Amino acid sequence: MMSWNRVTIIGVGLVGGSLGLALKSRGLARHVVGVGHRQSSLDEARSLGAADETTLDPVAGVRESDLVVLATPVGRFREILQKVVPALSPGTVVMDVGSTKAAVVAALEPLVPPGAAFVGCHPIAGSEHRGAAHARADLFSRATCVVTPTDRTPPEALERVKAMWQAVGMTVQVLSPAMHDRLLAEVSHLPHAVAAALVHVVSRQAEPLVGPGWADTTRVASGDAALWRDILLTNADEVAAALERFQGTLAALRSALRQKDAAKVEAFLAESKRRRDRLVSRPS
Amino acid sequence: MMSWNRVTIIGVGLVGGSLGLALKSRGLARHVVGVGHRQSSLDEARSLGAADETTLDPVAGVRESDLVVLATPVGRFREILQKVVPALSPGTVVMDVGSTKAAVVAALEPLVPPGAAFVGCHPIAGSEHRGAAHARADLFSRATCVVTPTDRTPPEALERVKAMWQAVGMTVQVLSPAMHDRLLAEVSHLPHAVAAALVHVVSRQAEPLVGPGWADTTRVASGDAALWRDILLTNADEVAAALERFQGTLAALRSALRQKDAAKVEAFLAESKRRRDRLVSRPS
Repeated sequence: MMSWNRVTIIGVGLVGGSLGLALKSRGLARHVVGVGHRQSSLDEARSLGAADETTLDPVAGVRESDLVVLATPVGRFREILQKVVPALSPGTVVMDVGSTKAAVVAALEPLVPPGAAFVGCHPIAGSEHRGAAHARADLFSRATCVVTPTDRTPPEALERVKAMWQAVGMTVQVLSPAMHDRLLAEVSHLPHAVAAALVHVVSRQAEPLVGPGWADTTRVASGDAALWRDILLTNADEVAAALERFQGTLAALRSALRQKDAAKVEAFLAESKRRRDRLVSRPS
Repeated sequence: MMSWNRVTIIGVGLVGGSLGLALKSRGLARHVVGVGHRQSSLDEARSLGAADETTLDPVAGVRESDLVVLATPVGRFREILQKVVPALSPGTVVMDVGSTKAAVVAALEPLVPPGAAFVGCHPIAGSEHRGAAHARADLFSRATCVVTPTDRTPPEALERVKAMWQAVGMTVQVLSPAMHDRLLAEVSHLPHAVAAALVHVVSRQAEPLVGPGWADTTRVASGDAALWRDILLTNADEVAAALERFQGTLAALRSALRQKDAAKVEAFLAESKRRRDRLVSRPS
């Protein structure tokens, strides 16, 4: 693929920092500028090699870049993009890596000036950890990136962004922003809400009894609360709808339990096991 | 602690096999007999060192043993104990390692003849894997074992069983069978039911988008369906009650999402993160 000359990553945390590392280590970017709001994070990103230079000033950071990546929490994208728009060069590609897309794309795309391009992206990679300290060049390997173009997305910008994600190891799937949000509600936002709710129902007396299964099931609930508040709220209607469908499924299981319907309970569990074992290649 | 002379483990899978290994490796049992219903599992247990001798015949297996451990799926305990009771020696301690206790203790305790003792146990250790192949001597290290005596449990048998679990590395907690089941519904049976239900709501189109968070949240759903059918059904009322409380919690979150109540959503997530981080020492 055509490599980037100058890439600015705004938000050099786990995802932004890992992208900087991946671009540098594969020779996909000549120069990476890291932008953040804490000097300590910027110093960490630079010492890890995730950025060649850093700045606290997003406006200065985006000057002369041909790719600008928004990698802060979703809730800050709009304010940042508004601030940097006057400093964007013609032909610049702006992309975000936010976990929700419909509200984000609708808010950001109109801000990008004619001659520049916006491409919404969601690399499905990461963990409950935050910060450049956990960044790694292989974060994106063998994972899926959803790219969400609209009628206004210039085809050449879309192709360049797709090629970039493929070059760092991802399988690219193209979906509309709305379809992305519906599907991610099922596989990410709903499970997050459910994991958080599972922690809530543990009584004090049960706390010493949590085991490795509980730790797995609730792991994502250790993710940052403000970050996930933004994700859930920018996709609130789809998440609420998925919760409603989920509650219907739980109600059916509860009824089978109340009736001691062994065949129904076993069929429910067997179907889950069969599907999960198929979806997760290495179930260990 | 006083070590056992002859221990019979009926069901040399993950938990039974690991107990055999732990007892042998720490010199807590002079001789371990493994009982199973498949020769291949027995051969595997013996080659791993989880048993000194093996047999397909539970009646022959329990003769002259001072400890008999029921480590099959919960649903088979009663039938097996009925079969072996005539062959138990006076003074034998019978214990189970089942994941539910009220129904199990009520069914098994009356079967044990005078002079022998029954002690219900639940070592909270294991994984979604089954079989002796995954057995390991340290499975019980730094985990909790719930022991559920009744008015009929001989104090000396209780103390010996507690000492044994402590000797293989566990923290022992004594609870009534009913309290065990109420608390385990919260931290194990409910999360299992919920993980299985999360798999059910994934649409075909969303399947390629499952990521590492989804794999963690649903991991326990890869557990054996028949085993978990028995666990959920032998604690059906507590699990159904926990599901009902859980659905109330979900409904509150869903309402906050529908109202776009950012403060309420963040407080919900922050409280989960705070509690989980406290309960799981190493949140990685």
